[in-house]
Amino acid sequence: MINQRSCVVLGGGGFIGLNLCRRLVDSGYRVRVFDRHCLFPEELSGAEWYQGDFLDAAGLEAAIGPSDIVFHLVHTTIPQSANIDMVGDVEKNLIPSLSLLEVCRKVRAARIVFVSSGGTVYGCPQDIPTPETAPTNPITAYGISKLAIEKYLALYEHLHGVEFRVLRVANPYGPFQIAHKNQGIVAAILSRALSNRRMEIWGDGSIIRDFVFIEDLTEALVAAALDRSDQRIFNIGSSRGLSVRDVIAAIEHQLDLKLDIDWEPGRTVDVPVSIMSVDRARTYLGWEPKTQFETGLQKTIAWWRSRRPDA
Amino acid sequence: MINQRSCVVLGGGGFIGLNLCRRLVDSGYRVRVFDRHCLFPEELSGAEWYQGDFLDAAGLEAAIGPSDIVFHLVHTTIPQSANIDMVGDVEKNLIPSLSLLEVCRKVRAARIVFVSSGGTVYGCPQDIPTPETAPTNPITAYGISKLAIEKYLALYEHLHGVEFRVLRVANPYGPFQIAHKNQGIVAAILSRALSNRRMEIWGDGSIIRDFVFIEDLTEALVAAALDRSDQRIFNIGSSRGLSVRDVIAAIEHQLDLKLDIDWEPGRTVDVPVSIMSVDRARTYLGWEPKTQFETGLQKTIAWWRSRRPDA
Repeated sequence: MINQRSCVVLGGGGFIGLNLCRRLVDSGYRVRVFDRHCLFPEELSGAEWYQGDFLDAAGLEAAIGPSDIVFHLVHTTIPQSANIDMVGDVEKNLIPSLSLLEVCRKVRAARIVFVSSGGTVYGCPQDIPTPETAPTNPITAYGISKLAIEKYLALYEHLHGVEFRVLRVANPYGPFQIAHKNQGIVAAILSRALSNRRMEIWGDGSIIRDFVFIEDLTEALVAAALDRSDQRIFNIGSSRGLSVRDVIAAIEHQLDLKLDIDWEPGRTVDVPVSIMSVDRARTYLGWEPKTQFETGLQKTIAWWRSRRPDA
Repeated sequence: MINQRSCVVLGGGGFIGLNLCRRLVDSGYRVRVFDRHCLFPEELSGAEWYQGDFLDAAGLEAAIGPSDIVFHLVHTTIPQSANIDMVGDVEKNLIPSLSLLEVCRKVRAARIVFVSSGGTVYGCPQDIPTPETAPTNPITAYGISKLAIEKYLALYEHLHGVEFRVLRVANPYGPFQIAHKNQGIVAAILSRALSNRRMEIWGDGSIIRDFVFIEDLTEALVAAALDRSDQRIFNIGSSRGLSVRDVIAAIEHQLDLKLDIDWEPGRTVDVPVSIMSVDRARTYLGWEPKTQFETGLQKTIAWWRSRRPDA
C-alpha cells in the first residue's frame, strides 16, 4: 500500500515506535519520528528524525503538520514508578498530552492514535477476556493517567473535532524490545537467559497475561489510523492467556536450557489475570492477532541472537 | 446524634460546605473548616476556622488529624472554565487532590468523602435515570478531573487502606447558594428575579436537570461518612428531571412575577438530560431525597428574602 499519507510517531525511538516506523516507511508513508533518543538509530532509515522532549510543546508543534496522523506512544512511567510518584506521572504524561491535543487542534492534524494500556485501565476485571465496555478501575496511577488521556482525547473530538483512536494494548513483545526499565517480561527473561544471568520474578509465576506480537500490534496501529468506523477504543491482544510460568517454560523449551530464577514477593500493581477480548477490533478494524506465541517467540529469539553473536 | 467524631470540611466556606458544617456542628461533631474564605463567616459558629489554600499541602496537613473524616468539597473550576484551561484545571484540582490523599495516608485520617459531579462524569448518558454503573464519558474537562480524582481515591484505598466514599451529586440548590461564578441556576434566577434584573440563559430552556435540595445532600454526606457497606460511589439527586423552563415557571409562580430573560445559544458543555438513579444510596446508605422541589424552592426563597429585606 503506497500513498502520500504523512505521520508523526511520538515516542518513535522506543520498542513499539521503532517497529511502527519501519512498517510505515516500508508502506510508503512519510514518517517523522519524535523522541528524546532512539534505541537503534540505524533502524530508522527512511524516517525523519526530530529530537525533542514530550514536555516541550514548541518542539511538538515543529514536528506535527496539517493532516498528519499522530501516533502517541509516549509514556515516561511504568506501573511501578507511577505509583511511587503520582504527581510526577500526571505532570510528565497527562499534562503534556493536553499540550499535544492543543497542538493537534491548532495545526489541524488528521487524527491521533493513542497507545493505551489494556493491562492496567481495567484494574482487576470481572469478565475475562475483557471487553472494551468493562468497568475501568485501575490499581495503578499509570492506568489512571492512561485512562484520563483517553477521556481528554474524546473531549477534544467533541469540542474541536480532533479525531482519535485508542488502542488498549495487552503485553507486546518482539524484536527491538530490550530489558529496559523492567518493561516486557519476554525481553527481561531472554536478556538474562542469553547471557546466563540469574533473574528476579515477582510473585509465584501464576499471574496471567495476554502477549501480543509486535507485528500484529503495528498492523493494528495502521488499521486504527485508517479506520472509518464510529468506534474509538479497541483492545489489542492475542485473546490468549499465558501465565508467567508458561512463558518461562516456552523460553526454556526453545532455548533448551533451565532458567535460574529468584522468586520474589508479588507486587500490588499486578492484577492476577489480564486477557483482552478483541472482537471489536476484528469487527471494525478487520484486524486479528495472527502470530502464535511460539512463532513470535522464535522470531524474537532470532532477533536477540542476531544482535548477540556470543549468545 | 451526639458523638466525639471529628471532621474537616475542605471547601467549608462555600455553599455545600457551609450547610454541611452547620449540620455537623448541630449534631455534636468537632468540625474544622478549611478554605480560602467564607461566604458567610457568622454562620460557622461552633466550627474551627483554618484559612488556607487547597494548593498548600502543609496547610492541609495542619488542619487534618488522625481519625478525621475529611470532606473534600473543593473544586476551583466549573465546567465552562475547566474547558478553557484544562491544564489549569488539572493543576488546581487533580494534583492537590493527590497531595491531599498523601496527607490523609500520612496522618491516618479515617475516611475521605469526596463530592463528585453527577451531572458531568457520565457525559451524555444512554440510561435515564443514570445508575452509577453507566459509562463515564465526560464532555467537559471538569468531569474528567472529577472522575480521575475518584479513581485515585480508589487507588489509595487499594494501596494504602485510606477509606473513601464518593457522592456524584446532581444539581444542588438551597440557602447559602449565591449566584457566584455562574454556579447554580436556581440561585442565578432568584438573585436576578429578586433584584428585578434581566438575565441570560444558555440554550432554549429544554435541558433537563436533577435538582437536589441542600438539606437532602448534607444528610447524604453524613450517611456517606458513616457508611459501613462495601459500596464506594453513590449518586445523590432527586431522581426527578426538571427542565430549565420548569424551574423558571416554578420560580415565577412562587414569586408571582414574570422573569425578563435573554435566551442565548446553547453551550457545548451542557448535556441535554441529567437525572440520577439513587437506588444504590437508598439501599446502602438508607438515604432518600425527601424534599420536593416546590418545598425546597420555598425554603430557598425564604432565605433569599431574609437576607434581602428590600426584596
